Amino acid sequence: MSAAEKPPGKPLGPLPQGYETFNGQLAIGGQTAAQLVQQAGGTPLFVYSREIIANTMMRLREAMPARLHINYAIKANSHPDVLSYMADLVDGFDIASGGELEKIQASGIDASRVSFAGPGKRDWELEAAIRASVTLNLESESEAERALAIGNQLGITPRLAIRVNPDFDMKGSGMKMGGGAKPFGVDAERVPELGRKIIAAGAEWRGLHIYTGSQALSAEAIIETQANVLELADRIATDTGHPLPKLNMGGGYGIPYFHGDEPLDIEAIGAALEERFGDLPASLKDSHLCIELGRYLVGLAGVYLCRVVDRKVSHGETFLVTDGGLHHQLAASGNFGTVVRRNYPAAIATRFDAPPEEVQHIVGCLCTPLDKLSDKGFLPRAEVDDIVAIFCAGAYGASASPAQFLGQGPAQEVLV
Amino acid sequence: MSAAEKPPGKPLGPLPQGYETFNGQLAIGGQTAAQLVQQAGGTPLFVYSREIIANTMMRLREAMPARLHINYAIKANSHPDVLSYMADLVDGFDIASGGELEKIQASGIDASRVSFAGPGKRDWELEAAIRASVTLNLESESEAERALAIGNQLGITPRLAIRVNPDFDMKGSGMKMGGGAKPFGVDAERVPELGRKIIAAGAEWRGLHIYTGSQALSAEAIIETQANVLELADRIATDTGHPLPKLNMGGGYGIPYFHGDEPLDIEAIGAALEERFGDLPASLKDSHLCIELGRYLVGLAGVYLCRVVDRKVSHGETFLVTDGGLHHQLAASGNFGTVVRRNYPAAIATRFDAPPEEVQHIVGCLCTPLDKLSDKGFLPRAEVDDIVAIFCAGAYGASASPAQFLGQGPAQEVLV
Repeated sequence: MSAAEKPPGKPLGPLPQGYETFNGQLAIGGQTAAQLVQQAGGTPLFVYSREIIANTMMRLREAMPARLHINYAIKANSHPDVLSYMADLVDGFDIASGGELEKIQASGIDASRVSFAGPGKRDWELEAAIRASVTLNLESESEAERALAIGNQLGITPRLAIRVNPDFDMKGSGMKMGGGAKPFGVDAERVPELGRKIIAAGAEWRGLHIYTGSQALSAEAIIETQANVLELADRIATDTGHPLPKLNMGGGYGIPYFHGDEPLDIEAIGAALEERFGDLPASLKDSHLCIELGRYLVGLAGVYLCRVVDRKVSHGETFLVTDGGLHHQLAASGNFGTVVRRNYPAAIATRFDAPPEEVQHIVGCLCTPLDKLSDKGFLPRAEVDDIVAIFCAGAYGASASPAQFLGQGPAQEVLV
Repeated sequence: MSAAEKPPGKPLGPLPQGYETFNGQLAIGGQTAAQLVQQAGGTPLFVYSREIIANTMMRLREAMPARLHINYAIKANSHPDVLSYMADLVDGFDIASGGELEKIQASGIDASRVSFAGPGKRDWELEAAIRASVTLNLESESEAERALAIGNQLGITPRLAIRVNPDFDMKGSGMKMGGGAKPFGVDAERVPELGRKIIAAGAEWRGLHIYTGSQALSAEAIIETQANVLELADRIATDTGHPLPKLNMGGGYGIPYFHGDEPLDIEAIGAALEERFGDLPASLKDSHLCIELGRYLVGLAGVYLCRVVDRKVSHGETFLVTDGGLHHQLAASGNFGTVVRRNYPAAIATRFDAPPEEVQHIVGCLCTPLDKLSDKGFLPRAEVDDIVAIFCAGAYGASASPAQFLGQGPAQEVLV
């Protein structure tokens, strides 16, 4: 686009696929934004789409090798209805706390399909996990000792894997989880010894967990990292002297949030994996191989809806003040570990097919300048009571935001 | 300190005054960290000190002109016990939502001492505030219309002030709330007309609210801003044609969080204010003059205590993995709207008088690299079950953090 054609204001992130227009409004699961809000009893409201989740999973299954198991990391979105829906779609679940284990159990999901990673597991969490047949991805030698001792005490054989701190990370990932000194996992060179010790102690050996980064949009980087993960796993398995029963290859599959972001080329990743899977070393030939994805599976399937409470003009700029805010959408506001604030995709849900005509700020109701949902987006002109939509709200929205800030409380959430 | 004397690692913020050592441990309100944790039933735990709050208020009263009313902005910390304790110490309260009004009412505080600012007030919030005789700091012309209409409908005279978007901000403040286009308040030049309209409509005229920024450590900047605020208020009052019954001059008094921060020189601010108060224009001669402080009153009075669950070494660096984390201490982790991460003051509470001997990372239990409470601090060597203290935790800690992230849940809070 030439400079002359560039729209005014600041760019918005790309609208995800799968959202429709009905009666001029944003429609999700066949219902308009206004209908969804009315049914929920008001705004602010997170709407999660079964259809978009299912389509994402379908495309992913098609692209990935049949042998690859796909797990859901529930930290992205652990709403009970989302968990129940995922139960039939994915092969396993990954959790990060005893609280998440309770959510899994409340949803009726078989906990033996679950593995648990997290650097500060307390004894009560280890005990609950061992009782429930959850696989523990051990983060340190001392955590291994505690898990073995608790298993002994309970008379239950613990299912133990080791989380590896690899000596490489995922290039271009939004969040690096390996390479150099890290609080996660056991440094790669110490893993074989710990593995042998766990096996000797009579635990059920569940292999390795190697997580290298998250939110990468470069297929090339993921392909390279997955190759490195398979190589490292083979090296560790060989040094341990036991083939790997299971290898969790981590995640890292990103979604487009910002202007210029391109969707991840999962077909390229799948083709490369297929090739590697055709030529696996002996240590991995019979391994259960899986990836764990959170954001990729549900991120694009969620929309955050809030209502315009006030429309203000200050020094010539227009502000749509909504009843939502960073207390539900911390990352979208640009305040969650972000250096440069950029806009998530946003729209006026009640004027979804109207042409953009005005640069408008979308802010929340909190009394802080941090509370900006969209900065100078070029949008249809909105009025009080219009509904605003912020996309990419399916992951790390409701669950990762300070809902109680300024006495506000949580948003409603609905799966349609 | 010369380069040769510089301690290893990264600097920690300055320890606040008022914390003591007892039996080698950090003591608050005469009890050691271990005792406090035991009484609370475990970690993580926020401890708030009555004594430190009271001392802060005492010094502030001494420094400020007797005429100046001091309000507490409860957004900083709205724990019920803190609210009840503040009721006798401060002159009024400032709230930012209907939820905060409910907290005020639950604490038995007379709501006529309260004013309510916030850009997205919903009708139910305006109604609850008007019923409770809360002063509304109106953020726009349309909010004024809604408030007047609701007052009419209820048959209650609403108490209305106007929040001004000033044409200047507070230099050196951590968060600018004025100057240029803002979602807060009414642009200064439109305030007189709105003021006359409100008075003509028969509302109780409560004057102006001018908030220019927060977390400033420069007395000079605050002195200059307060002078500007008084001038602007006089100009608006003169244009409105009515003396000001009340002027809320905002806040902005900061606390030292980081290495190199110096405490605010409140005596200088008080002396400058005293001088101005001696020479007020006619429009302000009889005004109720107040400031509203949140962080300054309670920030230094809080400590966050968490337990070391694991002590790990990775590539030669030591990590203390605790059962706390950014889900309670978002700002301390450097992820709440911060560009450059710096360390809050931190200590090993159970080895409070021990000499520092090792560079240690303090991380939380969350499975994300964002979850760092202290980066490479030079501290006494800590072991599993030691208690870590993060200071400056009295404001925007529990209330401004995503407690439910990764299924964790809130910390306990206690006022001692």
